[in-house]
Amino acid sequence: MDLDLIQSLVEKRDSKIVLLVLDGLGGLPMESGGKTELEAADTPNLDRLARDGICGLQLPVAPGITPGSGPGHLGLFGYDPLRYQVGRGVLSALGIGFDLTPRDVAARGNFCTVDDAGRVVDRRAGRIPTEQGAELCERLRDIQLDGAELFVKPVKEYRFLLVLRGDGLSGNVGETDPLEVGEMPLDPEPGSPEAESTAQLVRQFVDQARQILSDSEPANMVLLRGFSQHPDWPKFGDVFGLRAAAIAAYPMYRGVARLVGMDLLDPGHSVEDEFSAVEDHWDEYDFFFLHVKHTDSAGEDGDFERKVSHIEKADALVPRLTDLGPDVLVVTGDHSTPALLKYHSWHPVPVLLWSEHCRQDGVERFGERACMAGGLGPRIPSVDLMPLAMANARRLEKYGA
Amino acid sequence: MDLDLIQSLVEKRDSKIVLLVLDGLGGLPMESGGKTELEAADTPNLDRLARDGICGLQLPVAPGITPGSGPGHLGLFGYDPLRYQVGRGVLSALGIGFDLTPRDVAARGNFCTVDDAGRVVDRRAGRIPTEQGAELCERLRDIQLDGAELFVKPVKEYRFLLVLRGDGLSGNVGETDPLEVGEMPLDPEPGSPEAESTAQLVRQFVDQARQILSDSEPANMVLLRGFSQHPDWPKFGDVFGLRAAAIAAYPMYRGVARLVGMDLLDPGHSVEDEFSAVEDHWDEYDFFFLHVKHTDSAGEDGDFERKVSHIEKADALVPRLTDLGPDVLVVTGDHSTPALLKYHSWHPVPVLLWSEHCRQDGVERFGERACMAGGLGPRIPSVDLMPLAMANARRLEKYGA
Repeated sequence: MDLDLIQSLVEKRDSKIVLLVLDGLGGLPMESGGKTELEAADTPNLDRLARDGICGLQLPVAPGITPGSGPGHLGLFGYDPLRYQVGRGVLSALGIGFDLTPRDVAARGNFCTVDDAGRVVDRRAGRIPTEQGAELCERLRDIQLDGAELFVKPVKEYRFLLVLRGDGLSGNVGETDPLEVGEMPLDPEPGSPEAESTAQLVRQFVDQARQILSDSEPANMVLLRGFSQHPDWPKFGDVFGLRAAAIAAYPMYRGVARLVGMDLLDPGHSVEDEFSAVEDHWDEYDFFFLHVKHTDSAGEDGDFERKVSHIEKADALVPRLTDLGPDVLVVTGDHSTPALLKYHSWHPVPVLLWSEHCRQDGVERFGERACMAGGLGPRIPSVDLMPLAMANARRLEKYGA
Repeated sequence: MDLDLIQSLVEKRDSKIVLLVLDGLGGLPMESGGKTELEAADTPNLDRLARDGICGLQLPVAPGITPGSGPGHLGLFGYDPLRYQVGRGVLSALGIGFDLTPRDVAARGNFCTVDDAGRVVDRRAGRIPTEQGAELCERLRDIQLDGAELFVKPVKEYRFLLVLRGDGLSGNVGETDPLEVGEMPLDPEPGSPEAESTAQLVRQFVDQARQILSDSEPANMVLLRGFSQHPDWPKFGDVFGLRAAAIAAYPMYRGVARLVGMDLLDPGHSVEDEFSAVEDHWDEYDFFFLHVKHTDSAGEDGDFERKVSHIEKADALVPRLTDLGPDVLVVTGDHSTPALLKYHSWHPVPVLLWSEHCRQDGVERFGERACMAGGLGPRIPSVDLMPLAMANARRLEKYGA
């Protein structure tokens, strides 16, 4: 559904919506016929909300598509992730908390290895350790460009972020990564006449980087992809008519929330602190996006029991939210991260929506198989959740007469 | 979802996917409250896959739409049948196994009856028998056209296939069938300047056919519809990064598989032979489309018991597939053909997807009502099945970071 349509129906109310995201919530049993992480967890508070609310499984992007965290969250915020695409450079910047301005072009960089002829022999330079990558970034900061500022920030291992800052820059520049070994790095092609000067700056950067890194081993060259600029999207607060706050500890999630214009609150140092932030700012906002990371991290580590335990910890904190008396409470994940797969996956994600006005289904517990039979169905698109939350908060007018 | 998006996410793996299509699988009870054909059948092997897999009912085209075999299969291959439309002429060619080249324009022909003034009095010439239609086709082969080869092939009863082969032909020509009795056949109108020469060839064909058939009774004229050319679609193998083989005994299904670029394997002379073809070529391909026709034929004949029996025969052969160790096995139909209706129907079709990584639902048996409660939901679009199969085969990368 179009954000314009939603925006045209918005009605101001005092009601409050809380979106609790347990990152990577969806899971799988470790053996056929067993329980998933969420099913194995003891979650009396979430179960009560499931019983009193309406449940389902939500699809973050599309069937079979494994979502990255960016698309996973955009869907939950009501932005169709297939339409609202974020360039990899911008995502890299979000991921490390780099503050992009409208004058910036960001790119994702790899340190790589080239042979004497300049052909790429290892696109990841043997996956050099993070410290070495950071040290190489330091060296690249000596690069001088004509008419643009330069930022080179380490990300992880061989990956770094490049940001060019200047007037009239464009993200419409082709990648230099040939994607295959044995090939020469590509010339950064401007995708439009406006991008010519940016492409020229990228060439300058690459040439100087080659010289600076020539004595380095194994990382003696750079590859750049995903040139992009901070997108100019409708703001969440404008679309939904909500004063919206985000409470998230990790840069990626803070970044995505800021990308749609939410206020960032201090998440403190623990999950408990994050819940405190909701309490502390309860009167100032209409919408709270509260992000819990540990469930995903445990899934990525393949640690079923730790994921169960983090789900249970979050469950124990849920009464602090319900005690505040939200009008609508949505609990879900941005994607599944089954410990079995140690990675994000394509499986739809359990979701519960609680409000006084939802139509209760027969779901008695918050879990994958229970949610399959819920009133939201086994594959509701994640973008449909915000309009539903808005409706339950009585914040959407009738459509048509 | 766009095929381009899928293609951009494809990751090469060694995993194997099998799509077993039991044509016209979906059914209805012969009396209210009774069992469908699939529910009545004893299918221990499909039931086990349903139990260990994830089930649902799939919609081949759209709600309420009864699919032809072409659209039914295109959906299963991941091509949205509302977007990827095949002209009737091309479908006629596929249906009789005529090998279309890029220089061909195909049309579906009817023998019809016209009165002395040339007005159509019977659009189907009294549904003349197939032998008579074949004989008339022979006579039309004497027609000579300026600058194009000509093929006239009998299809069934009063229907035939016309193919014009030449340089610069276009399928953008209007039909000559007025669709109403009492009307004159229409002049074949070119839909664009490029189609003018083709329309001229069609006029020549129609004029000569009128003369040749003038002494024939009741079929003394022809009507032509659905001028079309072999479409230039993305190839299945390119989109999904799969070496794909089709095993089907009937021309229509072989034709649709070839339309998307699958290799055609020798289906032998029986259903057992078709399963042998999968075994014989197991190492050469990543994807097998295996088509069983008899279930549909029995449904079209209104023979409930025979359809049950063919479902059971297919079930008994399923272990030959599972013994091969596929990573993903999908079992479904291209549409429903309830014996009760003796015809294709709009009812969604039972589907099961088995893989190590699917999220099992509580479905215990493969049948219409059991599948309604499955994790794929009661109306998953058929086009979503290929992306899901690909995900379960671990052949799709994450979308976004």
